[in-house]
Amino acid sequence: MTLHGGEGMKKVGILPNLEKDKDFAVTNRLLQYLKLKECQPCLSMKAAKLAGLEEYGCLEEELYRDSDFLISLGGDGTLLGVGRKSAPYGTPILGINLGTLGFLTAEEKNHAEYAIDKVLAGDYKMEKRMMLQATIATDMERIEGILALNDICITRGLLYKILEFNIYVNEEYVDTLRADGVIICTPTGSTAYNLSAGGPVLKADAQIIAITPISAHTLTSRSIVVSADDVVTVEINPREEADFTVSADGQDAWTLTGKKVVQVKRAKEYASIIKTNPQSFYDVLRQKLSR
Amino acid sequence: MTLHGGEGMKKVGILPNLEKDKDFAVTNRLLQYLKLKECQPCLSMKAAKLAGLEEYGCLEEELYRDSDFLISLGGDGTLLGVGRKSAPYGTPILGINLGTLGFLTAEEKNHAEYAIDKVLAGDYKMEKRMMLQATIATDMERIEGILALNDICITRGLLYKILEFNIYVNEEYVDTLRADGVIICTPTGSTAYNLSAGGPVLKADAQIIAITPISAHTLTSRSIVVSADDVVTVEINPREEADFTVSADGQDAWTLTGKKVVQVKRAKEYASIIKTNPQSFYDVLRQKLSR
Amino acid sequence: MTLHGGEGMKKVGILPNLEKDKDFAVTNRLLQYLKLKECQPCLSMKAAKLAGLEEYGCLEEELYRDSDFLISLGGDGTLLGVGRKSAPYGTPILGINLGTLGFLTAEEKNHAEYAIDKVLAGDYKMEKRMMLQATIATDMERIEGILALNDICITRGLLYKILEFNIYVNEEYVDTLRADGVIICTPTGSTAYNLSAGGPVLKADAQIIAITPISAHTLTSRSIVVSADDVVTVEINPREEADFTVSADGQDAWTLTGKKVVQVKRAKEYASIIKTNPQSFYDVLRQKLSR
Amino acid sequence: MTLHGGEGMKKVGILPNLEKDKDFAVTNRLLQYLKLKECQPCLSMKAAKLAGLEEYGCLEEELYRDSDFLISLGGDGTLLGVGRKSAPYGTPILGINLGTLGFLTAEEKNHAEYAIDKVLAGDYKMEKRMMLQATIATDMERIEGILALNDICITRGLLYKILEFNIYVNEEYVDTLRADGVIICTPTGSTAYNLSAGGPVLKADAQIIAITPISAHTLTSRSIVVSADDVVTVEINPREEADFTVSADGQDAWTLTGKKVVQVKRAKEYASIIKTNPQSFYDVLRQKLSR
Repeated sequence: MTLHGGEGMKKVGILPNLEKDKDFAVTNRLLQYLKLKECQPCLSMKAAKLAGLEEYGCLEEELYRDSDFLISLGGDGTLLGVGRKSAPYGTPILGINLGTLGFLTAEEKNHAEYAIDKVLAGDYKMEKRMMLQATIATDMERIEGILALNDICITRGLLYKILEFNIYVNEEYVDTLRADGVIICTPTGSTAYNLSAGGPVLKADAQIIAITPISAHTLTSRSIVVSADDVVTVEINPREEADFTVSADGQDAWTLTGKKVVQVKRAKEYASIIKTNPQSFYDVLRQKLSR
Repeated sequence: MTLHGGEGMKKVGILPNLEKDKDFAVTNRLLQYLKLKECQPCLSMKAAKLAGLEEYGCLEEELYRDSDFLISLGGDGTLLGVGRKSAPYGTPILGINLGTLGFLTAEEKNHAEYAIDKVLAGDYKMEKRMMLQATIATDMERIEGILALNDICITRGLLYKILEFNIYVNEEYVDTLRADGVIICTPTGSTAYNLSAGGPVLKADAQIIAITPISAHTLTSRSIVVSADDVVTVEINPREEADFTVSADGQDAWTLTGKKVVQVKRAKEYASIIKTNPQSFYDVLRQKLSR
Repeated sequence: MTLHGGEGMKKVGILPNLEKDKDFAVTNRLLQYLKLKECQPCLSMKAAKLAGLEEYGCLEEELYRDSDFLISLGGDGTLLGVGRKSAPYGTPILGINLGTLGFLTAEEKNHAEYAIDKVLAGDYKMEKRMMLQATIATDMERIEGILALNDICITRGLLYKILEFNIYVNEEYVDTLRADGVIICTPTGSTAYNLSAGGPVLKADAQIIAITPISAHTLTSRSIVVSADDVVTVEINPREEADFTVSADGQDAWTLTGKKVVQVKRAKEYASIIKTNPQSFYDVLRQKLSR
Repeated sequence: MTLHGGEGMKKVGILPNLEKDKDFAVTNRLLQYLKLKECQPCLSMKAAKLAGLEEYGCLEEELYRDSDFLISLGGDGTLLGVGRKSAPYGTPILGINLGTLGFLTAEEKNHAEYAIDKVLAGDYKMEKRMMLQATIATDMERIEGILALNDICITRGLLYKILEFNIYVNEEYVDTLRADGVIICTPTGSTAYNLSAGGPVLKADAQIIAITPISAHTLTSRSIVVSADDVVTVEINPREEADFTVSADGQDAWTLTGKKVVQVKRAKEYASIIKTNPQSFYDVLRQKLSR
């Protein structure tokens, strides 16, 4: 398995969670280590400025596109954001965990150097995780190109006004739901919000999508698991208007009103997650589920 | 069983849902019928004005306090609001349903006159439904006297930032939850939001309270059913701040931030619901649950 | 709080789980300790014989009726059996745990002497746990007096033939279910099979009963929580015959066929559980739920 | 789309449910209709004898192997049996429903002739449904070639002794469960027992398998959805012995004891279900789920 770039000095983007690596202690440590290893570390302009490391700043596009690999410094949430931004370029991500155990992060911060060594030595696995791509549309307007690595969620506004939506798979009508919302998730996202809402765990490499209602008012609603090649369409507010939010990985969000159609399908992009430790998906799952 | 007032002309408050009885057609019809029956109908000032029936307007306090009984014209939602406002006076409520089948409404609008006849003839049952009373407090501020007939819900703000809260029953620590929220409901409210969130049905006359997490991130959380005499305390944001909303029956709402304590216990007030038809709670439940 | 008997030498029944205290090591140890404390220990004839302690054997009825208190040596399952047998006499039970953490056992075996000391010194709490009483009946036959501390379960026979049953509460028809079975449980039993089947946790001292279907084929079924004063009636096989089993605490069982009616209500008996440690119900619950 | 055989007279096997078509009324009617249409109807020897139609009897192997198509007369249960027996030969099945609405049956009995006409005219769709193949093994013994169209279920024996099992996917350890059992199902079976046990709906043509625990004692267990190419291994009684039953579609069953390993993977066979009506999977699902 090979990294993004070819031979020569490796360019490595570091993406710290600004809240979790507050004084940039880990960022600095890894930056020095990368230099020692004859790599070329870089940061976003914003992070570089905040850290007083302006000489390592580079444009965001260059960071995500030209790095041989990216180091996500934070938790699964940080990595989700890095994943969405790097997906168009296929740049691999090494997740270094600053907090609690995660599904996507490869190592804890104390093992960061060890993980970097393994990556540089080519001693790692690459997991290509499927992503979702959503479009929000009415006759009048259209928001395209929403990417998600975990899930696309459609949830009601704050006031206790239930959402109504029609669900279609490949234009076949599935059901009408009255609920707090609906989650459309990848296998990667199946262990996140989907699991809290009662959905099933999807094996990480299966090519499938789960549709899970959130607190449905009709009790007969269950998760539906479809193929990654199926297109899920959600028609929101078919009869009466209510505010709602469409969010990608719970991070990018659009608050809207009126009758809208959200279409979700497999993205052509993949997130490339670097795996340096032998812990299996189920090992993490068991630990997470028992808290 | 006797009505609120004594002998003589009955005073009857009509509380229409302004959205559902748009042209006040049913309000007018029942008002005429009540006059025919030698009752004294009255409306809120606001409704009276909108309906062009100013002569029937009276002050809200008088309406809820002095009526022999109240007619709630709408659905269960309308009746919940009437229930909270009339609870301090114990005034009985006759629910006339303008929409779909409800748990609390006694009759559909076509049977409204029939139901009024039964009430005037004393041919009805009175169900006293327990209510909840909540207090929101920090060291600095205090919101008291929040009444609910269905439930007190604590839910997260719009952004996908999970709420963390500690739950106590009678000051005994129960658990720490990370969830979209928590529902504390009466038996009346057990078939509402609680049911959507996976909670159990509580028999309408049982003196109990259910505590049900909404999409908990720890999978081990379940509904806990306690006695009506137990006091439920929820400590929100014990470790980090997030916006949250406290709502009563999904209608009255307070949006707050910071570390707060919400205490919920049985209210001293009861809602007095008039029942004129023989349909049992389970009859309605079966119909509702199969849509 | 006082023990069963009055002044003078205490009679203490020891009820070991024969599989868990295989060589009667703990039985012997506690027997010696009780003698040292000037108590009069006794065993069932069967246990006494197996343990080679014939001189301590006494008739089962005397054991359960005349002991000042009983020591249940095993787990929650052992204590359930002791609870059913001692309930008619109200004899208090001290549960000494030989295996994993339990809801009903007071102490682990290493603290058994410490617990006995506390009981003899009157330094304990007594929890009176409500029990259920079931009757199985047709026109022709009648099995009465079935006692349960956890639950009465009605489950299908081994072959994959679903059970159908009608449920009534106080003769009001609730619903018809097609399921693997139904659990009717006390608060004590709510954390056992009921929890596995998706039912709610009931606070240990609440006077309530939960009715929880097992793998219901109609998705709309949920747990229903009723008052301890309500009578639950289950009419099995109303339309076609299938084998089924009625079990009490999963220990006493009757396998039957044909149309039968099972009536479950609060027993007049209570189980008196001695509590010597300060660990709360919720402490145990949290530990159990996270495995 | 073409039927099993080539040109010339069509051989059509009729497989009636002996309990549902008691006097062979529908069998006789369809047999006459097939003759009128110049087809060659045949029955199993047993059914032919019971129906007094000995001249149409043929050997079971010939029936399933040589028929151009099979008519399953009964419900989904009848068709499951026909599906397992015909799968080795790939013979298509037309399901005629004698009872309530089914997922697999194409038409109700009143439309049977209409459906036969459509099949003979080539006006139908063929759904190839994936099946499962299970092996039960210890060092000493081995039961191979168990086929299932819905599910392989491993369930505890009658007495309330919980099963313990380890689950592996492709030899990766997933979890240890203590439960009433576990269901391993195809998309076809996802709407059967799996749904009752809380599992997700799998889209009928998705190439996936769901693993769903039945009443698990560890609350953290959820359905896991894996690829059809994954191999599921269940190690039963790893620590202590308990009776258990392995069943295929709830119809073929093996009751066993001791430590055993059950391996389940996609079968090489498919069931070929003829579809003559335009009703979608979701149409049936909605009707079924609302009872």
